[in-house]
Amino acid sequence: MSSSDIFIGETIGTAVLILLGGGVVAGVVLKRSKAQGAGWLAITFGWGFAVLTAAYISAPLSKAHLNPAVTLGLALTGGTEWKDVPFYLLGQMTGAVLGAVMVWIAYLGQFHAHLTDREIVGGPGAQDTAAADAKQAASSAGPVLGVFSTGPEIRNTVQNLLTEIIGTAVLVLAILTQGLNNAGNGLGPVGVLVTALVVVGIGLSLGGPTGYAINPARDLGPRIAHALLPLPNKGGSDWGYAWIPVVGPLLGGALAGGIYEIAFA
Amino acid sequence: MSSSDIFIGETIGTAVLILLGGGVVAGVVLKRSKAQGAGWLAITFGWGFAVLTAAYISAPLSKAHLNPAVTLGLALTGGTEWKDVPFYLLGQMTGAVLGAVMVWIAYLGQFHAHLTDREIVGGPGAQDTAAADAKQAASSAGPVLGVFSTGPEIRNTVQNLLTEIIGTAVLVLAILTQGLNNAGNGLGPVGVLVTALVVVGIGLSLGGPTGYAINPARDLGPRIAHALLPLPNKGGSDWGYAWIPVVGPLLGGALAGGIYEIAFA
Amino acid sequence: MSSSDIFIGETIGTAVLILLGGGVVAGVVLKRSKAQGAGWLAITFGWGFAVLTAAYISAPLSKAHLNPAVTLGLALTGGTEWKDVPFYLLGQMTGAVLGAVMVWIAYLGQFHAHLTDREIVGGPGAQDTAAADAKQAASSAGPVLGVFSTGPEIRNTVQNLLTEIIGTAVLVLAILTQGLNNAGNGLGPVGVLVTALVVVGIGLSLGGPTGYAINPARDLGPRIAHALLPLPNKGGSDWGYAWIPVVGPLLGGALAGGIYEIAFA
Amino acid sequence: MSSSDIFIGETIGTAVLILLGGGVVAGVVLKRSKAQGAGWLAITFGWGFAVLTAAYISAPLSKAHLNPAVTLGLALTGGTEWKDVPFYLLGQMTGAVLGAVMVWIAYLGQFHAHLTDREIVGGPGAQDTAAADAKQAASSAGPVLGVFSTGPEIRNTVQNLLTEIIGTAVLVLAILTQGLNNAGNGLGPVGVLVTALVVVGIGLSLGGPTGYAINPARDLGPRIAHALLPLPNKGGSDWGYAWIPVVGPLLGGALAGGIYEIAFA
Repeated sequence: MSSSDIFIGETIGTAVLILLGGGVVAGVVLKRSKAQGAGWLAITFGWGFAVLTAAYISAPLSKAHLNPAVTLGLALTGGTEWKDVPFYLLGQMTGAVLGAVMVWIAYLGQFHAHLTDREIVGGPGAQDTAAADAKQAASSAGPVLGVFSTGPEIRNTVQNLLTEIIGTAVLVLAILTQGLNNAGNGLGPVGVLVTALVVVGIGLSLGGPTGYAINPARDLGPRIAHALLPLPNKGGSDWGYAWIPVVGPLLGGALAGGIYEIAFA
Repeated sequence: MSSSDIFIGETIGTAVLILLGGGVVAGVVLKRSKAQGAGWLAITFGWGFAVLTAAYISAPLSKAHLNPAVTLGLALTGGTEWKDVPFYLLGQMTGAVLGAVMVWIAYLGQFHAHLTDREIVGGPGAQDTAAADAKQAASSAGPVLGVFSTGPEIRNTVQNLLTEIIGTAVLVLAILTQGLNNAGNGLGPVGVLVTALVVVGIGLSLGGPTGYAINPARDLGPRIAHALLPLPNKGGSDWGYAWIPVVGPLLGGALAGGIYEIAFA
Repeated sequence: MSSSDIFIGETIGTAVLILLGGGVVAGVVLKRSKAQGAGWLAITFGWGFAVLTAAYISAPLSKAHLNPAVTLGLALTGGTEWKDVPFYLLGQMTGAVLGAVMVWIAYLGQFHAHLTDREIVGGPGAQDTAAADAKQAASSAGPVLGVFSTGPEIRNTVQNLLTEIIGTAVLVLAILTQGLNNAGNGLGPVGVLVTALVVVGIGLSLGGPTGYAINPARDLGPRIAHALLPLPNKGGSDWGYAWIPVVGPLLGGALAGGIYEIAFA
Repeated sequence: MSSSDIFIGETIGTAVLILLGGGVVAGVVLKRSKAQGAGWLAITFGWGFAVLTAAYISAPLSKAHLNPAVTLGLALTGGTEWKDVPFYLLGQMTGAVLGAVMVWIAYLGQFHAHLTDREIVGGPGAQDTAAADAKQAASSAGPVLGVFSTGPEIRNTVQNLLTEIIGTAVLVLAILTQGLNNAGNGLGPVGVLVTALVVVGIGLSLGGPTGYAINPARDLGPRIAHALLPLPNKGGSDWGYAWIPVVGPLLGGALAGGIYEIAFA
């Protein structure tokens, strides 16, 4: 693989990942969407099939890492050369921002309806405007930022980090053992499918506390897009939390690499 | 493949696609169906498994395009000969109309119960008949037309077109990279399965705004059937919107072909 | 395959099919089950994975028909020898009755709780006992018979027959094209998986009107078990409807055989 | 396979199985989890994909039994050597306890919130504290123990045993026929996927009465963890029931071995 194949493959793949992954959250939480209220099972399957689609499209170009934690785990265990790592990361971050912008385009009217309907609730004419505004800001920031980035149900730095580490370690360990399961035949469609369903499983099982970033690019790229996009009443981008879904997954990827070296190699 | 294999394969395949795809919507929205209220997840899985079944049946005859946007993307990238394109399109449109008629047959009693129950709500004896009738017409046209064709939650030509372009581009890009993932072994059962789950994913993630036609034949064929079938109180066929799920998917298929030529070929 | 392999394979396979298929309905509709209220999506996936499990277990012995309509379709198109057909049918009917008895064993307490709780509702002390009893009989017969056999939402012989014919024709057509998709490699795990998901799709899309028997043994065997088992207040076995889920699927299987001979052979 | 590969593979695999399996229950039943209320379908898919992930990761080391009933069934039919059995069992029990501890870590805040919120309900200031406490103890023990171990909806030793025997026999029979379906090619990714979906099917269809342990280690290991972990107000570990999900699955595994020897070997 050339550096440009890696960069282009990861950019396209991660853009599709975030387009479909952010898209399912937008569909389920925003107003005036046919998917509104479809629930957690829809979100977890949606993210899993986002991985399926993105990995299937980008595998021929870049082997579909789509995730800095995966790239780190593979680099640590010799599955990827260190000199390729910068091109992976650059493509992943570029794609993640692009994907988030595409979610905004695809759901343009829904974002507007969602944010401006809420505006009216606490708008001019209401008696206690200040209190209503504060309440609205709190509740409104949640779902709209949630289309872009993850956030914890309970803010606890240690637990939040541990949950992201554990979830990512499971994901990366499954990807590292992929090679052993497929006897050197590369990823292949079945490998892509299994990985996608592993992601559905991690979401269902470990997504409850933090929303399972398990991928630094998946969280940081869309958070940057949230900060830049001209959304009305969008609230803050919660930068205070932003380091956890970056550091946690990287530690999880490294942990998986270590377990693999000790137990499997 | 002979022209007649293409035409017959696409006719049978697209008929099965629309039978099962329209069928799941009928099952979920019509009254007196065991599936009533099963929700968006049921609809998106139902459409995905409709693709699975239809592609599996028609792949041996016509390679299972079942979608003019797929045929266009393949023709633009050399995967299909231009001389075969008319037979693909003719089979797809014929099958789509036939499939919609079969949905009507399979759910005959449910259509009748649904449309005549609603009639009674605003029928003779109601005080404000005019208002009730208007309200009923608006709400009644929705679900029954929705069994046949797509419609947007928010009518905005630019957004609706963009959403259909984006969704179709993802689908066709996944189909174009299929050949690279399978090393020239043709579609195969695993390829069919992955494509079907990609369609579930696109539905979950990008179906919220417009109902994801992502296929001109899937939308236009059943709309023609809706206009022709003798359904009581069926309301209009919303021809003003009909061009968007034709033009958008074709542009999306062409866009995917372009991306493929630049990045993958 | 020897006649005894066919008989044993079909008996074991169809018993597993009905155990898991009837089991998911029992789980969802009976009281004091953890699955109560899990809905139509759970029922359709449950039946699909029942097919997966049953076909996977019986494929090595009998090629996993598990359905007289499938056996008929294969016999008509040369995929099965006519001399083997009686052993297929005998195994299928034996297995279907056994499977239904196993559902009764696995859900023994739930059947009892369900049927006797309902008895109390309209029991001694109620004012209008006769009306309550009548209402209870009607509603009670429904769910408990529904664990065993199918029944239509709207009783209309022509529509009910057509819906069963259409659903079965799709299933059998998918099974007949299986050979073409797998290039003579037999069913195989991927073929079993695709067939199972096709059944989920038919359930989601065409199950609404009649509950999708699409298999004479699946409906008739458990109906016999329902008639024989010592369930309190179980209500009638609805023998007046029993011929439709036998004749409809057989006609559907034959129709698929005819389409296959004309278009694919 | 060396004894140490078996022990390490089963420890890692069963730890992942219980982490994800217990995790989905924690996510769905505990307060302040994004998955709260996602329902039975989420739980059954979550457990199935837990099997997928765990088997995929451990297959290269230990062939992924992850279940004493599977090990017993394979040992009885010659698929596993008896001398390896102790290492399998030791790894499975070690992994099951470790996995349950990891669920506790990943959901630390949720356990605390869940258990202490309930405490407040019947806490100081309430009028009828004794009654409220009793009610709370009963209801509180349920969901939190349910994250770790299974329990029946209706306590009936004979039925509960039979349900576990039947469910496990289906699972082990599917695993034993795996070899016949894959023509000696080992488990492989498709085999892992089919087994995972078989487990989803058993959960949907036979999980209603007892919560489908179908695996002695899956139930006993986490029950030990529940007894040892410092959870406030956790209630008892229901040791009176603990033998059923051990003995039932072992009998089911032996039954499957017997059926296999008679019908398939």
